[in-house]
Amino acid sequence: MTKRPTTPLLDTIHAPADMKRLSDTQLRQLADELRAETISAVSETGGHLGAGLGVVELTVALHAVFDTPRDKLIWDVSHQSYPHKILTGRRDRIRTIRQKGGLSGFTKRSESPYDPFGAAHSSTSISAALGYAVARDLGGSIDSGLGDAIAVIGDGAMSAGMAFEAMNNAGHLKKRMIVILNDNEMSIAPPVGALSSYLSRLYAGEPFQEFKAAAKGAVSLLPEPFREGAKRAKDMLKGMAVGGTLFEALGFSYVGPIDGHDFDQLLPVLRTVKARSTGPMLIHVLTKKGKGYAPAESARDGGHATAKFDVLTGKQKKSPSNAPSYTEVFGRTLTALAACDPRICAVTAAMPGGTGLDLMAERYPSRVFDVGIAEQHGVTFAAALAAGGMRPFCAMYSTFLQRGYDQVVHDVAIQRLPVRFAIDRAGLVGADGATHAGSFDVAYMANLPGMVVMAAADEAELTHMVATAAAHDDGPIAFRYPRGEGSGVTMPERGEVLEIGKGRMIHTGSRVAILSFGTRLGAVMDACEALGARGITPTVADARFAKPLDRDLILGLARDHEALITIEEGAVGGFGSHVAQLLSDEGVFDAGLRFRSMVLPDTFIDQSSPEDMYATARLNAPDIESKVLEVLGVEVMGKRA
Amino acid sequence: MTKRPTTPLLDTIHAPADMKRLSDTQLRQLADELRAETISAVSETGGHLGAGLGVVELTVALHAVFDTPRDKLIWDVSHQSYPHKILTGRRDRIRTIRQKGGLSGFTKRSESPYDPFGAAHSSTSISAALGYAVARDLGGSIDSGLGDAIAVIGDGAMSAGMAFEAMNNAGHLKKRMIVILNDNEMSIAPPVGALSSYLSRLYAGEPFQEFKAAAKGAVSLLPEPFREGAKRAKDMLKGMAVGGTLFEALGFSYVGPIDGHDFDQLLPVLRTVKARSTGPMLIHVLTKKGKGYAPAESARDGGHATAKFDVLTGKQKKSPSNAPSYTEVFGRTLTALAACDPRICAVTAAMPGGTGLDLMAERYPSRVFDVGIAEQHGVTFAAALAAGGMRPFCAMYSTFLQRGYDQVVHDVAIQRLPVRFAIDRAGLVGADGATHAGSFDVAYMANLPGMVVMAAADEAELTHMVATAAAHDDGPIAFRYPRGEGSGVTMPERGEVLEIGKGRMIHTGSRVAILSFGTRLGAVMDACEALGARGITPTVADARFAKPLDRDLILGLARDHEALITIEEGAVGGFGSHVAQLLSDEGVFDAGLRFRSMVLPDTFIDQSSPEDMYATARLNAPDIESKVLEVLGVEVMGKRA
Repeated sequence: MTKRPTTPLLDTIHAPADMKRLSDTQLRQLADELRAETISAVSETGGHLGAGLGVVELTVALHAVFDTPRDKLIWDVSHQSYPHKILTGRRDRIRTIRQKGGLSGFTKRSESPYDPFGAAHSSTSISAALGYAVARDLGGSIDSGLGDAIAVIGDGAMSAGMAFEAMNNAGHLKKRMIVILNDNEMSIAPPVGALSSYLSRLYAGEPFQEFKAAAKGAVSLLPEPFREGAKRAKDMLKGMAVGGTLFEALGFSYVGPIDGHDFDQLLPVLRTVKARSTGPMLIHVLTKKGKGYAPAESARDGGHATAKFDVLTGKQKKSPSNAPSYTEVFGRTLTALAACDPRICAVTAAMPGGTGLDLMAERYPSRVFDVGIAEQHGVTFAAALAAGGMRPFCAMYSTFLQRGYDQVVHDVAIQRLPVRFAIDRAGLVGADGATHAGSFDVAYMANLPGMVVMAAADEAELTHMVATAAAHDDGPIAFRYPRGEGSGVTMPERGEVLEIGKGRMIHTGSRVAILSFGTRLGAVMDACEALGARGITPTVADARFAKPLDRDLILGLARDHEALITIEEGAVGGFGSHVAQLLSDEGVFDAGLRFRSMVLPDTFIDQSSPEDMYATARLNAPDIESKVLEVLGVEVMGKRA
Repeated sequence: MTKRPTTPLLDTIHAPADMKRLSDTQLRQLADELRAETISAVSETGGHLGAGLGVVELTVALHAVFDTPRDKLIWDVSHQSYPHKILTGRRDRIRTIRQKGGLSGFTKRSESPYDPFGAAHSSTSISAALGYAVARDLGGSIDSGLGDAIAVIGDGAMSAGMAFEAMNNAGHLKKRMIVILNDNEMSIAPPVGALSSYLSRLYAGEPFQEFKAAAKGAVSLLPEPFREGAKRAKDMLKGMAVGGTLFEALGFSYVGPIDGHDFDQLLPVLRTVKARSTGPMLIHVLTKKGKGYAPAESARDGGHATAKFDVLTGKQKKSPSNAPSYTEVFGRTLTALAACDPRICAVTAAMPGGTGLDLMAERYPSRVFDVGIAEQHGVTFAAALAAGGMRPFCAMYSTFLQRGYDQVVHDVAIQRLPVRFAIDRAGLVGADGATHAGSFDVAYMANLPGMVVMAAADEAELTHMVATAAAHDDGPIAFRYPRGEGSGVTMPERGEVLEIGKGRMIHTGSRVAILSFGTRLGAVMDACEALGARGITPTVADARFAKPLDRDLILGLARDHEALITIEEGAVGGFGSHVAQLLSDEGVFDAGLRFRSMVLPDTFIDQSSPEDMYATARLNAPDIESKVLEVLGVEVMGKRA
């Protein structure tokens, strides 16, 4: 382990109240120590690094100026909340972050009163801050009190429709609230910093109505070479000339841009806003993702997320992978299909890497569309691509597709448009915890008329399902697959087009049949091995389709066995529920069938390894084994035998 | 029936192609005839009137200038599409609109090639137009061809996040596409019309880069009294000074505002745009909702929707109601509770009247929040109100709550925040058809850990559930109720707080138990009356809760009867599925139980009367009767007896 940094000042801070006695100079030192501590902690645990490093000064300045937890500081997405956690009484646990029983990688209400509103999905913070501001003005009462409401939101998150809706509503309600736009697309070159220093001195001394003029005047102060410089500089010009006006059109007072790493700008602006602000205020802060740690600063993604790493070299300590990830298999398979079919195109909502579509974008950039954090638009856009004769794949994480649910219903399913939904991160996802679990997609997709819903049992099956989806022009189709590596099965040369609504027999046994939907099939096979030692040989089948169901397969399994168990990585209402509906409709229960449906339990499951989370969910091999024994009455484990 | 209008020119138009030979003067006459025909048709059928009247000239101008159906004309929401339907070969069926087997009240792909993208929920049109534009440029191929893509979207719909996401993406992709902002918040007073005429003459003659300057210059041309006039006038100033810039910030060229009832402005602008536009273009058109029909123009809502009416007087022919609507009962009950509890507040997404919250807003305006068409924000805003110590009711239609689903999961359920979801229009809704059906909410809500889900069996039950929700501070709670009138039961003085997770016995019978969730209880009672004549007396219970389930009630019913039938106004995956999961978990099926779950069928059900739609869904009394007979084997109706 690398030696931990020396942090004499940080060692004295047990809560933000301890920062009130620090001078501005000491706050600067505190920020340096906080940065070192953040780097050290993440090097030991892995996690989100770049975002936190970008807001170290902002975090210190906010806690120094405002009175948390009475003032509600709401971090959008909250990847950037590690320094905030260190300052708010959680330093002793920061090296447990994203681990079982440890701190969450996100803000979390149950974790600390300094986390007034948990996050993980983006663009919720302005709505949350507005809700707190309104509750305060309505006389709401809570233990921590209700003071200022402050949302810190990145420029990417600001592009989501939800953020726009919240700004639009906030501007209308005119409540005092503060939105800090953390704009980290921009490298802060010295000229900008100098300019911003000038501006922030101006803000501190001038009444609010002067801010706008100052920001506008700033354009003319820019040195010529900068003005005609790189794209980022142009963006900034646009930000100053137009951005402010844009926010003002939505009813916000606008201050900025200021250098988010410069206390000489941050502190006076925040103090002035705190002292004088009346209505909605937007502070435009420029920061650098990964700031202060060279390997992160120089990384293309600003050191967004990382495995454990060596602090000195920045080298990550990743365990070698044994099989390609499902995401990669999807990306590769789709790219290969796109080579032969010019109608194949793809839509992602700000996740080209996360969904594997970056692989296709390298080869066919004109056919891959990153719409930004905009799932609602992304789904409907894909629907219209389908209406226009294309074969669109809409690749989203299960948890984020929830954002586009109405569009799936209204624009895709009702119109029977052949959008292919590639649902990544289906099931439990590990360190990201409950907010990122893909628990509900089977339930919310499979009851839509005309929707085809598949789940891949392994990465070879995934290639077949991508091919099946590509070939399916008669209405919408979805296939789900989990986070992480495949099981290392032999991969087919190419995916084959599956017959819609047909499952496959894996193994014919007797007495009990296990019907698996998705990657629990591996655990089922493990359970069967253990059961074999007891002389029990279950029949095993892979449903492949939750919709349409393979009626013949299911009714046959029910007819030929004493017991039928379904298993899936999803909540009740999904595959097992559809099977139960079929069985009851067909009167199979009338004469008795030992039917069990193994689904995710009725709890949100906290972060851990996926394996451990499935143990908590009782969906691992030993749980399947127990269920078989119980249902056959071999061991009396419950009240029935 | 009022005499139908004389429409010599309209009589010659069988498709938009027939309009190509008309002079501009004739187009004006055509518009007049089209308006008269629209008024006449809606007077006979009822339906959406004001929106269509507002776009008569725009509809004529668009079809005259563009080449539909090759050019894709996409009406947002499509309440305003009646004149479009009349011009596009559907005039002979326009008097069947919103009726069983008739034209849809919305655009619908299956109805006409002139409806390239169906709508009903708002704010989807820009995404759809962009998808078509991209498909065109990627070489997509469809029967009608792929030309221009034109979205017509109202100013209200433009406020939704989804529209912003689409604009943001369109500005980035830079494809040729046209967004027509149909701004009907504004009455067009003569000065504006004169100004707009000036502008539109300018547009026609000037190259595009002059548009912006023209729009800006227009501000200074406004006469003084107007400039300092009413709020609307100020809004318009803002629209010109800022609106254009705002859209330009998103990468659109901006033209406007122009008078949407003046062909001298509409035709040259549209022709110029068609001839010269390259990238994304926004045309800002001012129209008056209800234009040209005095009773609609003078109505506060511009004659938005109407029953059949007398053309001469505008008087609507409504049948008298026998019982208060569920919506009204909700609004009244909540208002009464709010009188005693200052923490009760409410959120609606642009539906104060539709949700009954207007009743509360009259008394407690500071506690009712209309966030606009912004369900995502609305849900999270409500979550933060709860976090801030308030007791928020989030009142949305079932079908629109789909828009905020991720926020229900991520911001409400995971954080266990006590938001009260009042889910109106649950189940089948009649003339609005499949797009507005509330079919999925039980499924998508009841599998969320910690969520309480209720359904009201009648309007008295609804008052109890509102009271129960108000009192429930331990996590989120939802209650659903249908569109339309209650059943006329005696209303309680005040709602009583129900025990969470407890159903109620309605009638103790024998052999078969029917467990109802929601307002199908009335049909169940009717079925029981018919069954009584055959000597069959079912036990009947009202589940009240889909979550948590009343285990004792359900297991008791299963134990004491040969058969158990659940019934609900929702798709598979909801109440019946949760009951099935309980029964299988408890091994109740092992020894046999004649279990049936009556749910909505696996189809989208087209518009009709609700009663008729439930007949199609096989959820009416005769269907329940048949199911009981079948499951008891009294009559052999299926393959089992």
